[in-house]
Amino acid sequence: MKRFPLLILLLAVLPVFAQSSLEKDEAKIKEIYDMALTNGQSYNWLGHLSNTIGGRLSGSYNAQRAVDYTKKELDSLGLDRVWLQEVMVPKWTRGFREYAYIETIPGSSMPINICALGGSVATPDGGTKAEVIEVKDLEELEKLGEAKIKGKIVFFNRPMDATKINTFSAYGGAVDQRANGAAEASKFGAVGVLVRSMNLKIDEYPHAGSMYYGDIPEEQKIPAAAISTKDAEYLSGNLKLQKDLKVYFKMNCENHPDVKSYNVIGEITGSEYPDEYIVVGGHLDSWDLGDGSHDDGAGCVQSMEVLRLFKELNYKPKRSIRVVLFMNEENGLRGGKKYAEVAKDKNENHVFALESDSGGFTPRGFTFNANENQLQKLKIWASLFKPYYLHIFKEGEGGADIGPLEGSGTVLAGLQPDSQRYFDYHHAATDTFDKVSKRELELGGASMAALIYLVDKYGL
Amino acid sequence: MKRFPLLILLLAVLPVFAQSSLEKDEAKIKEIYDMALTNGQSYNWLGHLSNTIGGRLSGSYNAQRAVDYTKKELDSLGLDRVWLQEVMVPKWTRGFREYAYIETIPGSSMPINICALGGSVATPDGGTKAEVIEVKDLEELEKLGEAKIKGKIVFFNRPMDATKINTFSAYGGAVDQRANGAAEASKFGAVGVLVRSMNLKIDEYPHAGSMYYGDIPEEQKIPAAAISTKDAEYLSGNLKLQKDLKVYFKMNCENHPDVKSYNVIGEITGSEYPDEYIVVGGHLDSWDLGDGSHDDGAGCVQSMEVLRLFKELNYKPKRSIRVVLFMNEENGLRGGKKYAEVAKDKNENHVFALESDSGGFTPRGFTFNANENQLQKLKIWASLFKPYYLHIFKEGEGGADIGPLEGSGTVLAGLQPDSQRYFDYHHAATDTFDKVSKRELELGGASMAALIYLVDKYGL
Repeated sequence: MKRFPLLILLLAVLPVFAQSSLEKDEAKIKEIYDMALTNGQSYNWLGHLSNTIGGRLSGSYNAQRAVDYTKKELDSLGLDRVWLQEVMVPKWTRGFREYAYIETIPGSSMPINICALGGSVATPDGGTKAEVIEVKDLEELEKLGEAKIKGKIVFFNRPMDATKINTFSAYGGAVDQRANGAAEASKFGAVGVLVRSMNLKIDEYPHAGSMYYGDIPEEQKIPAAAISTKDAEYLSGNLKLQKDLKVYFKMNCENHPDVKSYNVIGEITGSEYPDEYIVVGGHLDSWDLGDGSHDDGAGCVQSMEVLRLFKELNYKPKRSIRVVLFMNEENGLRGGKKYAEVAKDKNENHVFALESDSGGFTPRGFTFNANENQLQKLKIWASLFKPYYLHIFKEGEGGADIGPLEGSGTVLAGLQPDSQRYFDYHHAATDTFDKVSKRELELGGASMAALIYLVDKYGL
Repeated sequence: MKRFPLLILLLAVLPVFAQSSLEKDEAKIKEIYDMALTNGQSYNWLGHLSNTIGGRLSGSYNAQRAVDYTKKELDSLGLDRVWLQEVMVPKWTRGFREYAYIETIPGSSMPINICALGGSVATPDGGTKAEVIEVKDLEELEKLGEAKIKGKIVFFNRPMDATKINTFSAYGGAVDQRANGAAEASKFGAVGVLVRSMNLKIDEYPHAGSMYYGDIPEEQKIPAAAISTKDAEYLSGNLKLQKDLKVYFKMNCENHPDVKSYNVIGEITGSEYPDEYIVVGGHLDSWDLGDGSHDDGAGCVQSMEVLRLFKELNYKPKRSIRVVLFMNEENGLRGGKKYAEVAKDKNENHVFALESDSGGFTPRGFTFNANENQLQKLKIWASLFKPYYLHIFKEGEGGADIGPLEGSGTVLAGLQPDSQRYFDYHHAATDTFDKVSKRELELGGASMAALIYLVDKYGL
């Protein structure tokens, strides 16, 4: 009977929304959706980011092009302020496209699809060739210990759990292999790691993503690659036939000194409470294999669209609304940290921050990191989103980039799109513009604009 | 305050679901979803229907291959009965691929993409060439009358309304042009009609679909084609520049005598109430331009999956559960009519029928054609589907094929998948297997199985 508390609260708070006010909100929200669906700009923006620019790894030429392009586009919207916020970001380069094969007998090789994980060191110039030991998790690795691991390539092959309905839960349950596998395996003398791609499909595409060495010394760092799910199955099957087969892989990825980059920020200054800030954003950087259409070009253009819709509809917010296109979510989160740091230094009161970083799919609702009172207030608005098929209004995460604002009293929110297809594309060469539905993208942007409109109008 | 009646009812009926029974249902439903997501068969079946067989227009060789294939697959499931139900269906053939162009000056042609609408007569052997008059609806057509229409090609160009969030509403608001445009235009002496494709996207693909001449005499029937949305915009733009441009189009489609075909039916006979029937189904026929993956290969394989899951999980239903793969939904509904007719003749008590014919996308819930008591009972089950992100449990349509069962006391239900991408593919060459997400398809089938499980267990 979980419905009771909400119901009681609804009855208590309902008079606040007098009929006319509710109708006004319904009408304004319909205006927002109508405009987004009939005269939206987000899909065009995404086409440029994805097709003309492409993958935008932090510190790359394309990342800078994306900064320049989105700054120019925001400039054209007639906002009150548009600026770049300097931030130093890590720079890691993939080098030539890595390659790998299984060697069953010397001279006989069967190619497998891999990609270097972000942050990995290169293999030696001649590549790395060694026997392979398959494990399902870090615990099994530890049990095997140095005796079984030393001199080998550790193959982490625990699949994402297909029975998790929200695929982000499945991701959360598997990604430790990618993030920490190399650091742990190196402690036992492994010479490299292969990690099954974070992908629920069986296909030939390796999925990139960050890995971390923690505090292990430079000379102990071992190269780490993702292997496609299809080839993970293939390698696993071959290991059953021949325990002493070898895998060869070669990568010349490289970590470089930090370089200067930017968060891109635009603002409509509030008419009544200019010192209260509402942020809506996504991250501008992406991995380099695809063009980052879903991760997170979609979130960027949807966030830009929120401010464009307000201008287009001549809605003058009471509070200051900022779109922030964060740099370096993928391998450092420097943009998010920098934004929060500057906000703190300037003593800016951020009341609300909303991130879209779960793909440009049909929006299903929002999750909120907020206190109980705020959460109850937010939940009351759920009914306004019902005509648009949004049904998730509950506690949960905001997003990585806005995470550093936590603890300063900011309510954090995350757009929750349908998650079923996200990990088909996430960090892989398949994350391209053709995977984005114009309507789904536009519905997400409109949903964000509608929520920001309510937060701006009523506060929290 | 719409929540009150449901809440009160919930409190009243709740004791029926003692905690242990509720937990049992939760566990059984989780078993169903887990099995569908980790050991599903629907995607493989669809791969065969789509890729090996292909488009399955009623009366075609491929439609017969689809009957044979699905019969064989059902035979292999160990059901209690599998049979074919004979039904005579219309046969219409497209002939060679139709073509068309805009002629601005004699000899200068600009090609446009069209397809004959299902049921249309051919153009004369030399094709049809005439001036074009653009209208937005049947009302405008009537206003213009014979003076403006006679001898011309009528171009129906009212787009689907992008602001409708449920795209089926947008379809419903535009499809009269396709269904009745030719019959109406012929009354005013038009020589042909072009209808803007039922597609919310602007692209180059014409979308097929049925059209009806009603009772107009044979010699007054005029050829009718769909034009791609891109070329509809193009033609409309050119008409603004030059009112007297001409369009040429040529089609040699043909209506043939009815031919014999089949509904494919499989049954698990009920253990307690074998004379109460529950039907789950989709339609086996499709249009011929694509391979009918979403419309309605998806619904067929999901329905087959429901019975397979029951067998796999060793669930023995109390009532008789039938999968019915209906023939000829697209251009005649003969299969649906035949099934209902035979059921009536045999005095079979059909308590429930569920159709999936809205694409193989992420399921959002169900709509029900039921009386108020039944509806309230059904709505109570909604909470069991919440973990699977289903949130629509409301009054609405079942599906075309099960429609003829209406009025015999059968509760009709329709699976409601996310509708945003459906009309990108519907009846077009783009409705192909690669547009179907394995997980989305499987979640739909599991949702159907879970609902059928509840209906079977508790009745209605």
